[in-house]
Amino acid sequence: MFAKECWYVAALSREVGRSLLSRTIANEALVMYRTEAGQPVVMLDRCPHRLVPLSAGKLVGDAVQCGYHGITYNHDGRCIKIPGEHQISAKFCSTTFPAVERWGFIWVWLSDATAADESKLPQDFHWGTEPGWTPLSDYLRVEGNYQLLVDNLLDLSHEAFLHMGTIGNAAVAETPAETTLRGDFVQVARYMKDCGPPKLFVRAAGFTTNIDRTQRIIYTPPCYVVIEVRAVPTGTDGAERKLEWWVLNALTPETDRTTHYFWGLPRGFAHDDAELTEMLRAGILRTFEEDRVMIEAQQRVLDKVSLDLRTVYTKADQAPGRARSIVSAMIAREHQSAQPVTDTGS
Amino acid sequence: MFAKECWYVAALSREVGRSLLSRTIANEALVMYRTEAGQPVVMLDRCPHRLVPLSAGKLVGDAVQCGYHGITYNHDGRCIKIPGEHQISAKFCSTTFPAVERWGFIWVWLSDATAADESKLPQDFHWGTEPGWTPLSDYLRVEGNYQLLVDNLLDLSHEAFLHMGTIGNAAVAETPAETTLRGDFVQVARYMKDCGPPKLFVRAAGFTTNIDRTQRIIYTPPCYVVIEVRAVPTGTDGAERKLEWWVLNALTPETDRTTHYFWGLPRGFAHDDAELTEMLRAGILRTFEEDRVMIEAQQRVLDKVSLDLRTVYTKADQAPGRARSIVSAMIAREHQSAQPVTDTGS
Amino acid sequence: MFAKECWYVAALSREVGRSLLSRTIANEALVMYRTEAGQPVVMLDRCPHRLVPLSAGKLVGDAVQCGYHGITYNHDGRCIKIPGEHQISAKFCSTTFPAVERWGFIWVWLSDATAADESKLPQDFHWGTEPGWTPLSDYLRVEGNYQLLVDNLLDLSHEAFLHMGTIGNAAVAETPAETTLRGDFVQVARYMKDCGPPKLFVRAAGFTTNIDRTQRIIYTPPCYVVIEVRAVPTGTDGAERKLEWWVLNALTPETDRTTHYFWGLPRGFAHDDAELTEMLRAGILRTFEEDRVMIEAQQRVLDKVSLDLRTVYTKADQAPGRARSIVSAMIAREHQSAQPVTDTGS
Repeated sequence: MFAKECWYVAALSREVGRSLLSRTIANEALVMYRTEAGQPVVMLDRCPHRLVPLSAGKLVGDAVQCGYHGITYNHDGRCIKIPGEHQISAKFCSTTFPAVERWGFIWVWLSDATAADESKLPQDFHWGTEPGWTPLSDYLRVEGNYQLLVDNLLDLSHEAFLHMGTIGNAAVAETPAETTLRGDFVQVARYMKDCGPPKLFVRAAGFTTNIDRTQRIIYTPPCYVVIEVRAVPTGTDGAERKLEWWVLNALTPETDRTTHYFWGLPRGFAHDDAELTEMLRAGILRTFEEDRVMIEAQQRVLDKVSLDLRTVYTKADQAPGRARSIVSAMIAREHQSAQPVTDTGS
Repeated sequence: MFAKECWYVAALSREVGRSLLSRTIANEALVMYRTEAGQPVVMLDRCPHRLVPLSAGKLVGDAVQCGYHGITYNHDGRCIKIPGEHQISAKFCSTTFPAVERWGFIWVWLSDATAADESKLPQDFHWGTEPGWTPLSDYLRVEGNYQLLVDNLLDLSHEAFLHMGTIGNAAVAETPAETTLRGDFVQVARYMKDCGPPKLFVRAAGFTTNIDRTQRIIYTPPCYVVIEVRAVPTGTDGAERKLEWWVLNALTPETDRTTHYFWGLPRGFAHDDAELTEMLRAGILRTFEEDRVMIEAQQRVLDKVSLDLRTVYTKADQAPGRARSIVSAMIAREHQSAQPVTDTGS
Repeated sequence: MFAKECWYVAALSREVGRSLLSRTIANEALVMYRTEAGQPVVMLDRCPHRLVPLSAGKLVGDAVQCGYHGITYNHDGRCIKIPGEHQISAKFCSTTFPAVERWGFIWVWLSDATAADESKLPQDFHWGTEPGWTPLSDYLRVEGNYQLLVDNLLDLSHEAFLHMGTIGNAAVAETPAETTLRGDFVQVARYMKDCGPPKLFVRAAGFTTNIDRTQRIIYTPPCYVVIEVRAVPTGTDGAERKLEWWVLNALTPETDRTTHYFWGLPRGFAHDDAELTEMLRAGILRTFEEDRVMIEAQQRVLDKVSLDLRTVYTKADQAPGRARSIVSAMIAREHQSAQPVTDTGS
């Protein structure tokens, strides 16, 4: 069960164009495309007539023509053609969802359209297309529940064991984290002074000495984690050499046990270096592949172990634990507000 | 759940010979072969001893020897050998089913053998080996429920969208169909005057002008659809150039979500043209492959969508809707007649 | 459901060393390795913290370090390191199981450790490393329940049909077996006089005439079958030419429908012939591959047929039938003794 009164990233901007893209989001099979004017469209990926996927059909102008019997739906879902018939019943419509393009991503709202307020987008993602910053984004698919990835990102001590070839150093496991839990606000910060630089940091910024490394992790329900990263040579203010980027993580549930992992890495240095951009893309994809392998092994264990199994917790589990409580409460509220009102009067 | 008091096509005649052929029909695993005299034999494909498939054994004369412990069953199911034992209990027998060979196909009857009346075969299949007609038949397997294929064949408007490379033309979607529903008789006819010829028609009969095209679709429960097809150059009686064939479709359920699609295409023209026969085989297989891809996508949607989902209907859905009602009633009658009689007397 | 108060073979001795070996035994995912001193260690293959497999981590001395967050468990299961924390709760421990190395195999005990008595090992396996005998052992995995393999080995009449290329001859199906059933003791013996030698016997011992062949099959619950095999030229005492070996079969359940098949073939002749050893390994693996294919076909039938299906029995089924009864009683006793004691007072 997923929270539904929220925006999910459905695609990178560059993935959606003038062909039909099929993708399942939160257990709903969707089809996406752009109108001739460039507006993103998201529909349920099935023709209401015979239930075949609309993505097996084709675009005709701004409309989708089903590939089976040719029934055609406009971008607003309205049926505009049934071959061999003159009248079209109002029941013949496809289901569409509010979709917006922002910060390099296509976002979709899967519940009541009247509540699809853009102010509910996770605002920290503005870094994705921030003027003066160099963008980078990509995608991988993980065969594990999205909350396992939230857990992963809210306890970065694992970088010291899983990611020593890229972003890990010993300090990230040994330095105490400062965890802030305040209502739905969850933040984990680590200030690592005079520590060895991770390999990817050396390749990206050319560090030759120890560094001061800062990482500030911010969670936004249900599936967003952004990380502010900063490193400078120890004893300097970074005026000569610094590394600063945001890691934007959108962990969109595909199904109960699979996740679309959309990510961005906008950086605040070395802006004209296209080679650096591709090196960082490769380095981050390698890192997230390491996570993917571990998360998928974890998911396979969870698929098998009995339900009454209890895990034990470290101090580092405070933030991921709170994140899960927030989502549970969010889903509970959604279900409560969906209850019919009953007259309790005398 | 399938209708059981009926004949199902289990194989093309040419598939069954002096080796053991294993195939599941209506959820029953069967093994088929011919006796030395050429009679088709159909048995349950498991040894009653240790339940291994008999098809893993071998033919010994007219009998099947299990490949595990050598227990041997005659073509009538009677056990004739248990290695190491002298007496054979009457309980040791394999289950056999009535089987007949007719019109180029092997037919099997899966319920009460005393009711296995050959008059219950779908008589229109006689075209499969009609004197003066050129036969053609083949097989493909579809990972979708057989009723999706009945739906497909009773609404051929889809030819205009899915099969434009072979048998589709625009007329088949735009021309109103004449649907006849009378008890268990379901027929859909379309008379398309002065229309562009489909590509396969041009390749088969060399049309150079518009044609008059007739298609008459007849359903026989539970899984038979035959289509009478005729085309002549517009304004002629076809004396110089005509196309006429029957499409015989036997949609035998394998499991609840898979189908054995046996088909024939006997034609009434160009009888000595073996090259044409192979061209037609390739053209029909391509067409049915296009159906297969769409039906399997449809089945995957059906596997996932919730049960209370309702589809909407077009006028073209009358015949497929009636076909489903007929099968439901057929299954209900079978179950009713299987009820024990209870005394309601005073 | 499996018997748990017993030893299971978890690995060949040579499979377990200074790296982490993951294997599921009786539905429990385990990780195995040796300490620096060479002692075998068997643990549950999941970190109690985040439930990832410990086998995705690494050995650090005698301890296992989880590959995700670096939490480290000693070979006795005690947690000795949580990165970033100074105190370690006693709840942080991994689950370990008694393990012993005997006769060329690693054995594990999956229930109450205080009952893990080595006298409960199946003593006939001592032949695996018997002084004066030449050892041979290997492994294959079978996608079938382990009891199907017990059935297989307790009725060797199947050798005459499935294994004619290696160990089968006609006599093994036609010669009456002497079955001894006495409490939990199950033995099947066959004394085949003046029979044609199986092909593998000819290749192994160079027989040029008929042989006298003895096979004595002994079952030890829940999953052990050892077979004493002896053959000499008919009319001799084997002083000049003889074949003698034991077939040791440990059929460890992996899951309800898969089995780890560990086997040994210690022989009492031709001790310095390494080429013969490899020829025998290939011959036995081919034989067991033939069994594997049949058992897996059998399992697939069992996966599908309805539960009320009854099989019929031959005389040769006495021993496998008894073996199943013994295991059922064994499981029932285990469950009974696990019942809480209730006061039935006066």
